[in-house]
Amino acid sequence: MSEHLTDHTPADASPVVGIVMGSDSDWPVMEAAATALGEFGVEVEVDVVSAHRMPTEMIDYGRQAASRGIRVIIAGAGGAAHLPGMLASVTPLPVVGVPVPLRHLDGMDSLLSIVQMPAGVPVATVSIGGARNAGLLAARILAAGTDDASVALRERMEAFQADLSAQAHAKGAALRASRTRTTGFSA
Amino acid sequence: MSEHLTDHTPADASPVVGIVMGSDSDWPVMEAAATALGEFGVEVEVDVVSAHRMPTEMIDYGRQAASRGIRVIIAGAGGAAHLPGMLASVTPLPVVGVPVPLRHLDGMDSLLSIVQMPAGVPVATVSIGGARNAGLLAARILAAGTDDASVALRERMEAFQADLSAQAHAKGAALRASRTRTTGFSA
Amino acid sequence: MSEHLTDHTPADASPVVGIVMGSDSDWPVMEAAATALGEFGVEVEVDVVSAHRMPTEMIDYGRQAASRGIRVIIAGAGGAAHLPGMLASVTPLPVVGVPVPLRHLDGMDSLLSIVQMPAGVPVATVSIGGARNAGLLAARILAAGTDDASVALRERMEAFQADLSAQAHAKGAALRASRTRTTGFSA
Amino acid sequence: MSEHLTDHTPADASPVVGIVMGSDSDWPVMEAAATALGEFGVEVEVDVVSAHRMPTEMIDYGRQAASRGIRVIIAGAGGAAHLPGMLASVTPLPVVGVPVPLRHLDGMDSLLSIVQMPAGVPVATVSIGGARNAGLLAARILAAGTDDASVALRERMEAFQADLSAQAHAKGAALRASRTRTTGFSA
Amino acid sequence: MSEHLTDHTPADASPVVGIVMGSDSDWPVMEAAATALGEFGVEVEVDVVSAHRMPTEMIDYGRQAASRGIRVIIAGAGGAAHLPGMLASVTPLPVVGVPVPLRHLDGMDSLLSIVQMPAGVPVATVSIGGARNAGLLAARILAAGTDDASVALRERMEAFQADLSAQAHAKGAALRASRTRTTGFSA
Amino acid sequence: MSEHLTDHTPADASPVVGIVMGSDSDWPVMEAAATALGEFGVEVEVDVVSAHRMPTEMIDYGRQAASRGIRVIIAGAGGAAHLPGMLASVTPLPVVGVPVPLRHLDGMDSLLSIVQMPAGVPVATVSIGGARNAGLLAARILAAGTDDASVALRERMEAFQADLSAQAHAKGAALRASRTRTTGFSA
Amino acid sequence: MSEHLTDHTPADASPVVGIVMGSDSDWPVMEAAATALGEFGVEVEVDVVSAHRMPTEMIDYGRQAASRGIRVIIAGAGGAAHLPGMLASVTPLPVVGVPVPLRHLDGMDSLLSIVQMPAGVPVATVSIGGARNAGLLAARILAAGTDDASVALRERMEAFQADLSAQAHAKGAALRASRTRTTGFSA
Amino acid sequence: MSEHLTDHTPADASPVVGIVMGSDSDWPVMEAAATALGEFGVEVEVDVVSAHRMPTEMIDYGRQAASRGIRVIIAGAGGAAHLPGMLASVTPLPVVGVPVPLRHLDGMDSLLSIVQMPAGVPVATVSIGGARNAGLLAARILAAGTDDASVALRERMEAFQADLSAQAHAKGAALRASRTRTTGFSA
Repeated sequence: MSEHLTDHTPADASPVVGIVMGSDSDWPVMEAAATALGEFGVEVEVDVVSAHRMPTEMIDYGRQAASRGIRVIIAGAGGAAHLPGMLASVTPLPVVGVPVPLRHLDGMDSLLSIVQMPAGVPVATVSIGGARNAGLLAARILAAGTDDASVALRERMEAFQADLSAQAHAKGAALRASRTRTTGFSA
Repeated sequence: MSEHLTDHTPADASPVVGIVMGSDSDWPVMEAAATALGEFGVEVEVDVVSAHRMPTEMIDYGRQAASRGIRVIIAGAGGAAHLPGMLASVTPLPVVGVPVPLRHLDGMDSLLSIVQMPAGVPVATVSIGGARNAGLLAARILAAGTDDASVALRERMEAFQADLSAQAHAKGAALRASRTRTTGFSA
Repeated sequence: MSEHLTDHTPADASPVVGIVMGSDSDWPVMEAAATALGEFGVEVEVDVVSAHRMPTEMIDYGRQAASRGIRVIIAGAGGAAHLPGMLASVTPLPVVGVPVPLRHLDGMDSLLSIVQMPAGVPVATVSIGGARNAGLLAARILAAGTDDASVALRERMEAFQADLSAQAHAKGAALRASRTRTTGFSA
Repeated sequence: MSEHLTDHTPADASPVVGIVMGSDSDWPVMEAAATALGEFGVEVEVDVVSAHRMPTEMIDYGRQAASRGIRVIIAGAGGAAHLPGMLASVTPLPVVGVPVPLRHLDGMDSLLSIVQMPAGVPVATVSIGGARNAGLLAARILAAGTDDASVALRERMEAFQADLSAQAHAKGAALRASRTRTTGFSA
Repeated sequence: MSEHLTDHTPADASPVVGIVMGSDSDWPVMEAAATALGEFGVEVEVDVVSAHRMPTEMIDYGRQAASRGIRVIIAGAGGAAHLPGMLASVTPLPVVGVPVPLRHLDGMDSLLSIVQMPAGVPVATVSIGGARNAGLLAARILAAGTDDASVALRERMEAFQADLSAQAHAKGAALRASRTRTTGFSA
Repeated sequence: MSEHLTDHTPADASPVVGIVMGSDSDWPVMEAAATALGEFGVEVEVDVVSAHRMPTEMIDYGRQAASRGIRVIIAGAGGAAHLPGMLASVTPLPVVGVPVPLRHLDGMDSLLSIVQMPAGVPVATVSIGGARNAGLLAARILAAGTDDASVALRERMEAFQADLSAQAHAKGAALRASRTRTTGFSA
Repeated sequence: MSEHLTDHTPADASPVVGIVMGSDSDWPVMEAAATALGEFGVEVEVDVVSAHRMPTEMIDYGRQAASRGIRVIIAGAGGAAHLPGMLASVTPLPVVGVPVPLRHLDGMDSLLSIVQMPAGVPVATVSIGGARNAGLLAARILAAGTDDASVALRERMEAFQADLSAQAHAKGAALRASRTRTTGFSA
Repeated sequence: MSEHLTDHTPADASPVVGIVMGSDSDWPVMEAAATALGEFGVEVEVDVVSAHRMPTEMIDYGRQAASRGIRVIIAGAGGAAHLPGMLASVTPLPVVGVPVPLRHLDGMDSLLSIVQMPAGVPVATVSIGGARNAGLLAARILAAGTDDASVALRERMEAFQADLSAQAHAKGAALRASRTRTTGFSA
């Protein structure tokens, strides 16, 4: 796996994360998952797999994912969002669900349709519109293994987290500086 | 009733409404659909068809329903309730969805998971726990046809509605009478 | 289409689906129901029938719909949306309710006012703003009959569903292609 | 009280407030409206008038209420609660709506179905299950007139409010006393 | 209209409805109440009476309203909307509450803060942003009296309702006509 | 504790926190505030001060609290909960609001009625039914001063927090132990 | 103002209120807290302290705040807003929480994540986006002390409240005047 | 890893999943996670790690988990549920969050507090009270690896899913049989 997850990418790197969505209209939200995984050097595949418009292919996608080398599925859908849960029912892989907000209800319907799965078939749900976190969660899952590639990916995640912290520090410094400049004097 | 609703009336009347649910724990709610249709003499079949636990059979159920003579499907499910919508995606028949309330959220998750279907795949959703109305809606659908059986069923529905009215009248009369008895004198 | 769905096929085909709404301000939402039924060749009539502003005419509309040849009623309303339920109380026909979202509450009030009907009087509720699905549901209902016209309509619905699937496939192909073009190389 | 609130004071005082509900199952909630009005000596009539099960009679009830001497209508209903709004559409009288909570959703559906009326047809909505307040609101409405009976009723309302205050004071005194007794000593 | 609604008809008719709000920022919503009452010839007064910013004057306003000749109070407020309920606690007059929507929560907080009053102190709540209906409800309340002015006002309300119906009819006719024009031919 | 928190330490220590509620039915919830403050040796007074049933006294209570030596007010109320906000409008003291859950809506109405105060008049809101936290918050506020009593109280709070931690540790130890005992063997 | 609120009045007055937020994107909302405290002459410090991106520093911030002279912490965060509660768990100081609304759910997630703290660790929650009230609440808390600086600050708060009232009066006067001007004549 | 995940359990098997919760009162909900993982032969550790009552230890737990051999953390909490998100901020491991329902709000506050995490720090959220699914999700994550133990665990998951299906089939058969027995005759 390490050849997939490191900078040294072989010519024939196959994807390990499948990012699917019910409609291409979900892509502007879902693209952030692909971007996040790209930052970690994780190969992804992206596709439209509609639970309601192409159910047979959706079932097939889930059924074959593991044998094709996919290790995590990220599925985004909105409204009565059935894609993540249906995929989870036909694969033993971890499925990450992204509630895509539609025009009404602000994604609450999407969230409940994804997260409230019955006992036996879990979906790892992230926040409404939280595709970037879906990608990061997939990276953490891939990094939870015991082999060298996983260990390397976990180290990248730790570096990523350190960078998040550094960015937050910088924002704080900038905010403090801006206030000093503004007033020009202190109490 | 089967002689009314099928072109040919076999000795062993075949069901025209399929009542399915994700788990037998939904039966106490869903039974009311069967009872209502029984009052109208409509043959039904009842089964557990879980979208999440037996997805292939669920797809098959939906795919084959019309050719087996089923004309309306009633599907009940709770939480992330995917059964009604998934069935609707694999059948041209009208699918009536019953949001079954679970322990938390009072059925709001079930309702949104069923009713908020994307354009192209409708589910005829009834109230939370409203299986009796699902049965009555199926009867209305069967009665919307143009043949004699449909006309006869529609007449039954009108009689049923007249009876509902009579019952409501009787309740009003009883309420008025109870108040007169209670006070013993009026203004 | 009218020649299929009415017993007699007059030169001036009479509508079999009535699409009504509480106000002409609902028309931009409700028009999609008429469009969908038009795609299936189903004759519709469209009218403003306000439960609150013209209750007598609303009752009359419901009472007379079946005898006028209407076989399915689609009713859209917003806020305290009483039109679908009131019509359902005065007709034996199936009534499809469309929750029209108003300026506040994102249609949640419309949805609950339509879907939470008491036992005895069902309304087939579709999603918030889901008028297109209301039209498709009416088509499914009309297609649930046993006569030739119903069978033909059901075949059209199956073709429609196949087309939905093809469109979804095409979207997936386009999405995959766009990503390949963007990066120019694979892993 | 009837001698105050009707133009003519017959031996058999006629009711001035009509309390109606969709089902006799609403009576345990709605009885509090009758009780409250009884405390003010206001004659009431009570009936089951279901919008969905006896729509014609419901319309008639609303149409005839004013001419029968009714001056305020109190209507209670649950779920998709259409009774208050439909009555308001066929009477010029003020209609007070009581959202009756049903088994699910805690009365939120009832509340929204009653309060979110479109412009033109108001319903004076009280709290979920707030039938006592519906009665008190009807009393205030009757007391808003300019004749002697209204003035007398308004004085009664003021006395009632003073009594509410006295009761609250007494509860405060009892609470303070109970704490003194409990500890036996103060700071 | 003032000559009808006050005992004495001074040259300078005094208002019978007080329209108050927590802030002048509520005026764009609340103005519709004044407009509606103006259509019925009812004199109104309009003021800012903030429960939270001028509590003493708010209490005084409520206390003195009846003796100043006010017969109905309409109070609009948003968020933690305390004005209608607090006024209702210091006056025997009917108080109509208008939930004003603020930037967040779409008026749901305003609605619950107004409608969920404890037993003893009712507020006649209308829809979110429903100031026009608040005015119409006040007109109905004034029309619920037994004197000639009330009867006249009730007749105006009936005429208003007939006009609502006529407008709805006209909208329906226009909608039907527009569709005929569009297609140019029928089925 | 009173010797620490008042300027003068009389034999009969006067309360520094006023705990008030709209009805004695709120006492079972609100008692936890008094208990918590008792654990910190803070003198409290407890009373029923209803915004809706005794508005004048409520206003007076708020107006006079600071001059009577009260330094923090804790107010609990349910439904359209106006007490905390109204008190905050007539006192410069910090007011802690406790949303008391009523029979319906699970305290959501209480929460929104208390927390969504307009700019200018803050209420320090705690969780639904969170009277114990209201007491602890009042203790933190008293401990935010600069005098010796405040410092001593802050030390008590730190000790309290250390004790919370110790209790949580003990619970963890007990849980771990119980699992060992149950299975009798480890992995 | 610092000379009033600290024991010693250094030339470089040190802040007594810490305003922190999870991201600089919260600053447009949170700035109002700083502005409000500035109006009362209270020294503040402002910083980005992310619970999720720099947890160690966040813990340190809370742990050291009291010893650095901070007396009240104001913390704003959105979504799964953990900052206020986590700070409250590591400081004995009062923590004021500001629910910052994000793109979805209108701040309801932020509100519940902040206000629903478990027993033992209170957060003084203000309204969604209510940073100005957070500042005013901090001022009230500082004014709840017994020393001269606190008394002076409380007097300022009373003056502020009087000014709020005056502004509200002026708005009412302007509204009344605008209506007189508009119509030019009275009833 | 296989020695941990198979029947052959060495004497010193170390846990690979940490199940933690904010209070031992969460154990009745959370125990199902341990049970599910036990069914898959996965070693777990269980502990109380309160974000609010022992924040330092909570941070330490998260920081050290990976180096101690933990590969997935399952964290349950209720109300303002900060534990899952805080742990996710200090570990690169995947964190599964279980919203524990408390007495009020039915777990909606717990759900939003866990799932609505900001970009950068994902929590894999399952349904309200869905601890069993949290365990199953952890098993899927462990099974997503590429080594033999992962493959073996994935095969177990597929067997588990086949068993779910068989159980659902059996429930359907029993339901069908019960209905045949009940009626004793068919249509």
